[in-house]
Amino acid sequence: MACITLLSDFGSASGYPAAMKGVILSLYPSAQIVDISHDVERHHIRAGAFLLWMVAPYFPEKTVHCAVVDPGVGTARRALAIASGGHFFVGPDNGLLIPAAERLGEPKVHHIQNEKYFRPEVSRTFHGRDIFAPAAAYLAQGLPLPELGPPITEYIKLSFGEGIRRGRILEGEIIYIDSFGNVITNIAGKLLHELAQPGTMLVVEVSRKVVSARSAQTYGEAEPNELIVTVGSHGQVEIAAVRESAATRLRARPGESVRIQRPT
Amino acid sequence: MACITLLSDFGSASGYPAAMKGVILSLYPSAQIVDISHDVERHHIRAGAFLLWMVAPYFPEKTVHCAVVDPGVGTARRALAIASGGHFFVGPDNGLLIPAAERLGEPKVHHIQNEKYFRPEVSRTFHGRDIFAPAAAYLAQGLPLPELGPPITEYIKLSFGEGIRRGRILEGEIIYIDSFGNVITNIAGKLLHELAQPGTMLVVEVSRKVVSARSAQTYGEAEPNELIVTVGSHGQVEIAAVRESAATRLRARPGESVRIQRPT
Amino acid sequence: MACITLLSDFGSASGYPAAMKGVILSLYPSAQIVDISHDVERHHIRAGAFLLWMVAPYFPEKTVHCAVVDPGVGTARRALAIASGGHFFVGPDNGLLIPAAERLGEPKVHHIQNEKYFRPEVSRTFHGRDIFAPAAAYLAQGLPLPELGPPITEYIKLSFGEGIRRGRILEGEIIYIDSFGNVITNIAGKLLHELAQPGTMLVVEVSRKVVSARSAQTYGEAEPNELIVTVGSHGQVEIAAVRESAATRLRARPGESVRIQRPT
Repeated sequence: MACITLLSDFGSASGYPAAMKGVILSLYPSAQIVDISHDVERHHIRAGAFLLWMVAPYFPEKTVHCAVVDPGVGTARRALAIASGGHFFVGPDNGLLIPAAERLGEPKVHHIQNEKYFRPEVSRTFHGRDIFAPAAAYLAQGLPLPELGPPITEYIKLSFGEGIRRGRILEGEIIYIDSFGNVITNIAGKLLHELAQPGTMLVVEVSRKVVSARSAQTYGEAEPNELIVTVGSHGQVEIAAVRESAATRLRARPGESVRIQRPT
Repeated sequence: MACITLLSDFGSASGYPAAMKGVILSLYPSAQIVDISHDVERHHIRAGAFLLWMVAPYFPEKTVHCAVVDPGVGTARRALAIASGGHFFVGPDNGLLIPAAERLGEPKVHHIQNEKYFRPEVSRTFHGRDIFAPAAAYLAQGLPLPELGPPITEYIKLSFGEGIRRGRILEGEIIYIDSFGNVITNIAGKLLHELAQPGTMLVVEVSRKVVSARSAQTYGEAEPNELIVTVGSHGQVEIAAVRESAATRLRARPGESVRIQRPT
Repeated sequence: MACITLLSDFGSASGYPAAMKGVILSLYPSAQIVDISHDVERHHIRAGAFLLWMVAPYFPEKTVHCAVVDPGVGTARRALAIASGGHFFVGPDNGLLIPAAERLGEPKVHHIQNEKYFRPEVSRTFHGRDIFAPAAAYLAQGLPLPELGPPITEYIKLSFGEGIRRGRILEGEIIYIDSFGNVITNIAGKLLHELAQPGTMLVVEVSRKVVSARSAQTYGEAEPNELIVTVGSHGQVEIAAVRESAATRLRARPGESVRIQRPT
């Protein structure tokens, strides 16, 4: 019973994810289907890529991750199927799948071309249902990846970058705002551990705001109204606030730069 | 492993869909349960009927669709179980199930009466849990439909109507606004293909607004801020906007009339 | 194929519930996973406890309910695994699990300590993924409860209280506002049946507002704009309005007192 995850910007209540599930179950009735999220901000490829990157490693080997944040649907953008680290990824060639695939191993990327594995009629606006869902169902049942189409080496890359440490300063970028308003950065957690002991007061600069925040190991350590800098469950440095949204407070947005400084 | 779909206006976070799933799994532990949506606008039978109509065809034969948008719960309205086109439908007699059942085949409609297949105590406010969910679980395991109750021929109909073409004009009605704000009409896609080549500028009249919109084959063809008229993945003509909500821009609401004209 | 339910305040679109599901499926690939809700108001332990109390009885025996509303994650608060009435409960020691566990039977409470059943690396901020999800997966596959840790008798209790009747008056407290805005109280349904025939006009006092409301057996009996007092599907007295939110109209909040009086 192989697992198929779904991620999209369709809205969980829209019926579109259910149409994909119907297609999958028609081909593979005992599939174990898991929704990662269908409420990715519309057309926000980086946000979808981050969620997939965050969640994919917790799934068992042979899981097929089918992700659709696809502003270019119906244009010349290609459809991809990728094998990496024992998992598979299916979705558009716009970078969405790449960070997760690279996190798990050495991606082998194929261009989905074999119409034998498409739905009989392919709409121009819903490749999730007509191309990606069937490809995922076939892969989950053991179809060899090259059956879907030839390997390619040129495809659209996407990277969150990697924050760095320069002495008393960490520098990076916001990659995601989670549902609690925690501000997740591209700075690896170990750099925070190198920078400061838990409890140290730090100076955080985000989107031209400069604030104080305490280095903490857990949300429970923070005082009400206090900002903390911590290592989130995804292993990245994040800025959080207890019982409120740090992102709202800092007016932080993905893509903005972050500086975290330890005073002398 | 038969599939049971659920659709309701309960809210996915309300706990009520989970209660239905608990009842189903108590009777049929290996059921493959799929949510279509639980966020149908409250008591909006036509919106629920459209989602079910849109999604049902993608599910495998023998799927049982259990739908509950049911403002009349606890009154004299009847409970129905329907067989059509190899699928089953369970829900209230208020029209909700009819468009989907008619789309799939020739509906055989039965009035659920046999209390042997109810939960032991039937509440007056939650037939989804106490009558529909158990009926769905029994049907999914092969219970013959007549076991639930006698066939009937009088039941509440619901139709979205059918848009028409008169020369250079398409006329119809809005049946649904999707999660992207796309305005979905009751005009069949082939009428748009007959009316105009892709790329043609059309005049669209919705809710007393008159706007220009381009006939397009896919969302990707549109320019920012441009309205397009296209055939959606459900096969109906829809009015869409790129990266914004066409419905908000047009202040369009389900039930309003739509006119699409090709200039001479 | 045992059932595992999930409840949290993570947000269904956050990716965090999916990470828990990945962990569960890695340990138990055929688990039947059901979401109760992931949109509990953040850190609102009583609201989560009510949903679990409401839904748990409908699930089959051997179901494992894994619930995470956990403001104290990473602090000294303990992790619990409970057996009661043939079900299991896994989650933090903050009262969340207790009303449901007490409703189903005589809770046997264990303190989860055996790191053999944790994920290899336990984060300080996401015990749902690293401790509770694996514990649920092991219990669902038959691991004896004492394997997870020793029994304890001291743990944090939580009770919704019990509304009472004094002659012509019912007195209680609001325990939950549901997704429809129905105001659910801690007054048992049978007390309303003792107080008044269906159709009786009652005087309801909530949050310093005094209003008239009719005793009714079902939502369908109410007139537009009318408030009704009824017994909800959960068996508790609730105050409801047709096609609108009674909670908004009464500005009612959980924790506030409720008085329902039958005029002489």
